[in-house]
Amino acid sequence: MDGAHSGDIRRRTGKLAPAAAAALNADLAARFGNRLATSDAVRQQHGQTVTWLPTEAPDAVLFAQTREDVIDAVRICARHDAPIVPYGAGSSLEGHVNAPFGGLSIDMTQMNRVLAVHAEDLDCVVEPGITRKTLNAQLRDTGLFFPIDPGADATLGGMASTRASGTNAVRYGTMKDNVLSLGIVTASGDYLRTASRARKSSAGYDLTRLFVGSEGTLGIIVEVTLKLSGQPEAISGGHCTFPDVRSACVTTIETIQSGIPIARIELLDALQVKACNTYSKLGLPEAPMLLVEFHGSPDGVAEQSRRFGEIAAANGGGVFAWATQAEERSRLWQARHDVAWAIRTLRPGAQTFATDVCVPISRLADCVEETQRDIADTGLIAPIVGHVGDGNFHVQPLIDMANPEEIEKAEAFGKRLALRAIAMEGTCTGEHGVGQKKIPYLDAEHGPVALDLMRRVKASFDPANMFNPGKIFK
Amino acid sequence: MDGAHSGDIRRRTGKLAPAAAAALNADLAARFGNRLATSDAVRQQHGQTVTWLPTEAPDAVLFAQTREDVIDAVRICARHDAPIVPYGAGSSLEGHVNAPFGGLSIDMTQMNRVLAVHAEDLDCVVEPGITRKTLNAQLRDTGLFFPIDPGADATLGGMASTRASGTNAVRYGTMKDNVLSLGIVTASGDYLRTASRARKSSAGYDLTRLFVGSEGTLGIIVEVTLKLSGQPEAISGGHCTFPDVRSACVTTIETIQSGIPIARIELLDALQVKACNTYSKLGLPEAPMLLVEFHGSPDGVAEQSRRFGEIAAANGGGVFAWATQAEERSRLWQARHDVAWAIRTLRPGAQTFATDVCVPISRLADCVEETQRDIADTGLIAPIVGHVGDGNFHVQPLIDMANPEEIEKAEAFGKRLALRAIAMEGTCTGEHGVGQKKIPYLDAEHGPVALDLMRRVKASFDPANMFNPGKIFK
Repeated sequence: MDGAHSGDIRRRTGKLAPAAAAALNADLAARFGNRLATSDAVRQQHGQTVTWLPTEAPDAVLFAQTREDVIDAVRICARHDAPIVPYGAGSSLEGHVNAPFGGLSIDMTQMNRVLAVHAEDLDCVVEPGITRKTLNAQLRDTGLFFPIDPGADATLGGMASTRASGTNAVRYGTMKDNVLSLGIVTASGDYLRTASRARKSSAGYDLTRLFVGSEGTLGIIVEVTLKLSGQPEAISGGHCTFPDVRSACVTTIETIQSGIPIARIELLDALQVKACNTYSKLGLPEAPMLLVEFHGSPDGVAEQSRRFGEIAAANGGGVFAWATQAEERSRLWQARHDVAWAIRTLRPGAQTFATDVCVPISRLADCVEETQRDIADTGLIAPIVGHVGDGNFHVQPLIDMANPEEIEKAEAFGKRLALRAIAMEGTCTGEHGVGQKKIPYLDAEHGPVALDLMRRVKASFDPANMFNPGKIFK
Repeated sequence: MDGAHSGDIRRRTGKLAPAAAAALNADLAARFGNRLATSDAVRQQHGQTVTWLPTEAPDAVLFAQTREDVIDAVRICARHDAPIVPYGAGSSLEGHVNAPFGGLSIDMTQMNRVLAVHAEDLDCVVEPGITRKTLNAQLRDTGLFFPIDPGADATLGGMASTRASGTNAVRYGTMKDNVLSLGIVTASGDYLRTASRARKSSAGYDLTRLFVGSEGTLGIIVEVTLKLSGQPEAISGGHCTFPDVRSACVTTIETIQSGIPIARIELLDALQVKACNTYSKLGLPEAPMLLVEFHGSPDGVAEQSRRFGEIAAANGGGVFAWATQAEERSRLWQARHDVAWAIRTLRPGAQTFATDVCVPISRLADCVEETQRDIADTGLIAPIVGHVGDGNFHVQPLIDMANPEEIEKAEAFGKRLALRAIAMEGTCTGEHGVGQKKIPYLDAEHGPVALDLMRRVKASFDPANMFNPGKIFK
């Protein structure tokens, strides 16, 4: 293979030496003044992950305010051969914001404006640091909304970087389907837009979707053009318990096959329901449960609800409890979004070992059941919650971080889960991303030829391996 | 910039020398026997485009039957430094199948099997040479269908390569949204799958969408995993005339904004309607017209139809003519799909200069009206038909190929149209692809930084510039 076009990513081996870091920080401070932070507290906070992974702090943190800030930071870091780690809400789950080789963390949260709303085109242009809840609050009066909703109130730049999705993906798709175009600063400190605002194009390679999900390893997102959806005229939803996980999965498959355009369909296992009851004071029956929502016209959602109810009943589902009032519905979905907090009630003081996988929906019941047996055999406390319309589910073992044996057990469990999903023609991560801890599974999932092509993209876009080194690739 | 990672694509300058072509053909014939064709007729047919572009024949044509055939062909061509041009139905419109540097055309039409249908997962796995109509005929009894419908009965491999769409894209998306995974043979003669069958994944770069729309320049598609949709329980549709193009466009915008999940919404200008009347014997009023279709439950389509009718009436639309019978509807949509043939009745013996652009829907009326004025000023006969729900429309000037002045006029018109769409935040091609003739507009659309990244991908995946040289890039 021609060496000039190989997938050899330049290796980084250790953190910047203290003198190199000091020289970098001096140049950055000269350009950015007090928007550059080097205090221990700020650095630690920017290398802090929300899961059990150890914190790896950067050498400095820049609070960027403009595209020009990012361009200048890239050029200064390139001169110093220093890594750059983009930082949004810090809510990613696989160590994406860690700085194992030091360098600069660029905090995007001050780049948080809505730059344009094109209501006729159902799109908007935003800076990457705005969060999904802030965006939707600003869109409220337009009749439009942005549907992608990971559990956390993440930034749109971060959501694009990890190819995030959430509870609405079964109806509205993931970030890959809802980003129309990105503004990117490249490793050479140049700026590009990946696409026009047209709804579709056949004009060359799809750079938009190449950057979506690239976890900050190919360039820095400084602008995001998003597809918006009309706020549904009517919403209905509710919950229904099932005798076992399998009958809930079969209900999901039949619902989707029958063409019901369901907006949300979430599975909670009995342990997860118990945790939600405690945390969110719900009083739900502690059995496997589907939480569903329908969007459409008043007649449309009534029809969808009726048909779904019939399918659930035919599969042994219990009485369907409709949450017709908006408040009741919000309370239920808030509880769903709070599962990461709720599960901590199951084992106070424990750390969560969050992981997610995704399989073809026909294998979902098999995968969840095998995983439940694995949890029981391993002796873990690990509730399951899933976006089952997509075949995607989360498992969150609760771990005592003072106990190395438990950590080892959880890691071995996570490995078995990832490989189980891959063996079922699925993926080791449906929406969390690769980050640091899923790197070992990419070979099993993609094989060496596909991985080599990914490495070629990385090596050709970022020859110095400046952008988020140590993520996706070793 | 580091030369080892630049976007310098290896230049090819002329066709293979006769001796080199003879040596290539001898090696290929030794491996493939009479599945290798070198007759003038077969070679000419495989470098034949369906538009006005001149034919550029390959040195030989291989009728591939297996993935191994393609792997061996790639290895033999690599040894001879010979270009490879993949060939499907030959229905692409921008010269994609031309072989300006000679080499081997690989005809995929004998790789036309459905390898698997996973009804529970709403997906199927096919070989690339199957056409969309054959696929749908084979799916009929499953209750599922594949919705993407370019005018021609194209192959799925070709449709993936050009990121094709068609009349259903406003509801079902384009090939980018409906390809789950691809099987690819690389320039090194290795095989990879771009993704698992999971509905979503965050496991690394999105190779699937990098290959979709890459026009055979990065690798050869030998397998396609497609998302399927449920056959709609009920369909309704019809047509409605408007006083002018603008009121038809405003009706489209308001329909989409109001959240009506319209399945098809096509604009025909008065000249196009006239051509359809002659060719398909329809007797439609010769005025701007919207042709629409709704998919859903019986109650759902009734509600959608009623709401659309109200919006059309408020914008000056004439009486809405419903085609409730399946036969009547098929006749109307067959006429829509036959527009490329119909327009030839407007000027018998003339060649079509087919082109398409796409703009944000808010600019659609401006773009179509300016284009109609341009057509009138230039003195062209050029009907317009569009997938207006996406902001995408086609213009097809009819040209006397014996008249160089007319060709020049049409080329200048095509350039103005492409740059007009780009200036309106749109794209120089919504669904036809770049091929040979849209190369000059990519710089205006993407800018030099984005184009450089595309070139880096090409140079790193295909260092010898073996795959479809002279397409997308000079």
